[in-house]
Amino acid sequence: MAASVQVLAFDIFGTVVDWHGSIQREVQALYPAVDGDAFARAWRAGYKPAMARVMSGELGWTLIDDLHRMILDQILPDFGLDHLGEAERRHLNRVWHRLDAWPDSVQGLTRLKRRYTICTLSNGNIGLLTHMAKRAGLPWDCVLSAEVFRAYKPAPETYLGVARVFDLAPAQVMLVAAHHDDLAGARACGLRTAYIERPLEFGAGHPKDVAPRQGNDLHCSSIGQLADVLGC
Amino acid sequence: MAASVQVLAFDIFGTVVDWHGSIQREVQALYPAVDGDAFARAWRAGYKPAMARVMSGELGWTLIDDLHRMILDQILPDFGLDHLGEAERRHLNRVWHRLDAWPDSVQGLTRLKRRYTICTLSNGNIGLLTHMAKRAGLPWDCVLSAEVFRAYKPAPETYLGVARVFDLAPAQVMLVAAHHDDLAGARACGLRTAYIERPLEFGAGHPKDVAPRQGNDLHCSSIGQLADVLGC
Repeated sequence: MAASVQVLAFDIFGTVVDWHGSIQREVQALYPAVDGDAFARAWRAGYKPAMARVMSGELGWTLIDDLHRMILDQILPDFGLDHLGEAERRHLNRVWHRLDAWPDSVQGLTRLKRRYTICTLSNGNIGLLTHMAKRAGLPWDCVLSAEVFRAYKPAPETYLGVARVFDLAPAQVMLVAAHHDDLAGARACGLRTAYIERPLEFGAGHPKDVAPRQGNDLHCSSIGQLADVLGC
Repeated sequence: MAASVQVLAFDIFGTVVDWHGSIQREVQALYPAVDGDAFARAWRAGYKPAMARVMSGELGWTLIDDLHRMILDQILPDFGLDHLGEAERRHLNRVWHRLDAWPDSVQGLTRLKRRYTICTLSNGNIGLLTHMAKRAGLPWDCVLSAEVFRAYKPAPETYLGVARVFDLAPAQVMLVAAHHDDLAGARACGLRTAYIERPLEFGAGHPKDVAPRQGNDLHCSSIGQLADVLGC
């Protein structure tokens, strides 16, 4: 199986970077009275509904930076932050460009890059992913995004788009993700799949069930273990 | 000027990599009876007319890999190579993924990357540019291509597309290229421009006029000199 795979495409938010911890830390540093844990989860909770509005056609094509801002403006009053001005809102919204990697990500990706082409496949926009990679040291060969395919995961255009970009069969591409719905979308398109356990994606107070489920080719505790399993 | 620029977008063929020398060397190694210099120039000569057929609508959207293959099939008989089979043609066509960098490119880009976001802005497709970067060690922060914008340079969508991806004003992006028509297209869209001298782009037998022309913000002998001038 591993011999035929040439490209590893990585989900980003939660899989490679710790959105919850990064946002919690930054929000609590900026606004000590705010519950950073609840704030991070509230912001993220608006993400799928916002993308669904784009994919249904209710909203025209909208980048994640702009969806994040729409959600931010909605939740600020709930956290007593409706007094924030435009510059503060813009700065806070860019926290998604400043997310920290999980501790195993950089080293694991660096090992995998020796043998595979490694790329992002994220609903995040290209600018966001590029700034994040530059800051966190993520050594992508290529930044692919919903922005390239003008469709959000789990739309088939995104998974099949990676195969098309590299002129490969779907089974020569493996999606690496910490989310079963993303992996199921990829599997339905014929991609290989690897699940990564990120039990603390939603914070220490909200542990996630990371038990193995049927269907994925690989199930790993970290990106480092994925590199072990793939012999990198 | 340099203080406001945040992104350096690089033309690739001729500016960062030596297409002529790379193709000449590979063709002469594979087919010693063929004039590699003439072969490389004939292949490249079909490039702009092929893109013009795409942009005029005569051809639907077509990736450079496919345009290169169309031109290759056309020129093979002229060089006594019409007997090549499908596998050999496929392999030869991928020489564009295997182009060698100019000697100053990797070190110059590595220096520039410390201070700027560095990306490709090439008519080459994403897969081609990614394979090339991986093989040649080009340390892009992000691979942008005509494929992302579905338009070939010098169409304005490509230059303005870079600014949009990074949420910047056009004047915060600088195009770096060895071709005046490309730089003129960028300048017309409000980008900053840097010309790089590549006198041997078409081979030692066909030196190119690299004298300074009016209009560009910078004129450099190499990417290394660009890094010097920008203080990286």
